[in-house]
Amino acid sequence: MLLLWKPVVKRLKDETISYINEHSLEWSKVAIFLLNWTKASEVYVKMKAKYAASIWLTADIMFWKDRELADILEEIHRCNLDSSYSWVMVQLPVADQCKQHQMKILDSIHPSKDIDGLWSVMFGKAWFWWSEIDFLSATYRSAMHILDHYSLWEVSGKVCLVIWKSNLIWKPLLLGLAKRGATILSANSKTPKSVLLKMFSMSEYVFSATWVKHIIGKVLIDDLETCSVPLHKKVLIDIWRGSDDEWPYGDIDWEYFEDKVKAVTPVPWWVWPATVASLFHNILSLPR
Amino acid sequence: MLLLWKPVVKRLKDETISYINEHSLEWSKVAIFLLNWTKASEVYVKMKAKYAASIWLTADIMFWKDRELADILEEIHRCNLDSSYSWVMVQLPVADQCKQHQMKILDSIHPSKDIDGLWSVMFGKAWFWWSEIDFLSATYRSAMHILDHYSLWEVSGKVCLVIWKSNLIWKPLLLGLAKRGATILSANSKTPKSVLLKMFSMSEYVFSATWVKHIIGKVLIDDLETCSVPLHKKVLIDIWRGSDDEWPYGDIDWEYFEDKVKAVTPVPWWVWPATVASLFHNILSLPR
Repeated sequence: MLLLWKPVVKRLKDETISYINEHSLEWSKVAIFLLNWTKASEVYVKMKAKYAASIWLTADIMFWKDRELADILEEIHRCNLDSSYSWVMVQLPVADQCKQHQMKILDSIHPSKDIDGLWSVMFGKAWFWWSEIDFLSATYRSAMHILDHYSLWEVSGKVCLVIWKSNLIWKPLLLGLAKRGATILSANSKTPKSVLLKMFSMSEYVFSATWVKHIIGKVLIDDLETCSVPLHKKVLIDIWRGSDDEWPYGDIDWEYFEDKVKAVTPVPWWVWPATVASLFHNILSLPR
Repeated sequence: MLLLWKPVVKRLKDETISYINEHSLEWSKVAIFLLNWTKASEVYVKMKAKYAASIWLTADIMFWKDRELADILEEIHRCNLDSSYSWVMVQLPVADQCKQHQMKILDSIHPSKDIDGLWSVMFGKAWFWWSEIDFLSATYRSAMHILDHYSLWEVSGKVCLVIWKSNLIWKPLLLGLAKRGATILSANSKTPKSVLLKMFSMSEYVFSATWVKHIIGKVLIDDLETCSVPLHKKVLIDIWRGSDDEWPYGDIDWEYFEDKVKAVTPVPWWVWPATVASLFHNILSLPR
């Protein structure tokens, strides 16, 4: 089975639009700070603005790549106080001149406007008080939404492998799985291949976010004699995509696995839209 | 090799006393709120007070088991403002009448006085900004201190198994290990025994905090044919102890493993003192 992002995006979008209508939030403004020079961030910010327009919101992009810390904090503070801004977000990473102050910048966003959920306090509460508060981190939420959509989000007692590189993606995912009673295997770039093979063999769910093309593919499988959880019982979820501009690629060679596993996400075309849709769907979860 | 808690406690105590002397903190006051009726909490609070006295501090125990939320918050606030109190801590769990407000109570402690590091913001910062801030959670710190003492805290690229029950112990440990580049296997009560066996087999470090007597013992080993990481390379760390009043017990049957593994902690006599010593050692890490 293919786990398609497109119907998930559609559902998230419908739910977000309904919420916006019900609460008369049409054309509310979201401030998006672009604080770095990378092309990918610019593309991503524009995608967010376009999506905002499609759900009847207004996005103000602040192209503040060369500003100093004091200016940025002042402007965020202004958006916090300005009731015409309903939400504020910062596109990561921040530029070099502000790098050491990244925590300060994100923490300056008021929690009720922190649609990205990157405020330390929100993170701390979600982590420590996990029975009461869930993570907002958009990539985590998109993985959760797609599993939920296909009724696969019952991971209690299941073995879940998370292969990670980025902190932002991995931490909420790991703890979200733990919260649901999963047994977790967490591999990173330092994990020896022999260990990764064993982990893959015993897992029912595999989440991958490494930006390594087809790290989960034929090459891995060829080295495995048998899987203790057979392939046809496995669910493979690719939660990010490589940033090669010409041709996006995934961690998981889904075409190879399509007929062999229980379910796999065909990455990468719809991962970004799903993450953006999850981000704006957070509107439903923020304290009002 | 036995990993002995006693010399670790001695070192932590010496370092804490030196710090207190250097910063003229002698007889500074720490407020300890006891907000529940369990015997174990009372014993534990008294142990903390006794240790405080041994390092030249003054502990004020507030036996506030039957107070309502508003009173407790007011008193904590008073301690926050009163410069004669250098630190404030709450013995968990809180009593039933305050259970739903536990987050509020812990969050009311000022971060500069939060020696237990249970303030959501501190947790959030430590979690999200882990390169800058470390966890204060005393049980996690005691495990870290003992491995550090025996030069075993280099876990990068190593496979570490964490068997957990309590959130407070497990979460900082898991993320502390991840921060150091470990490959992590996380088992809980829902993990099937066959999976636990595989996890044990491939692990170099095993941390256990389940309160299940000798969950890591002969019975487990008897079911294992071979370990992919052989026993003589394994390090076993018991990070809590069973609360049987008559005779404390550990998760790990250390007497069985003593001659078989690389290193094992002889629990349980010195776990509590090590946790208390780690708690007060946090004085060195708190923002001043």
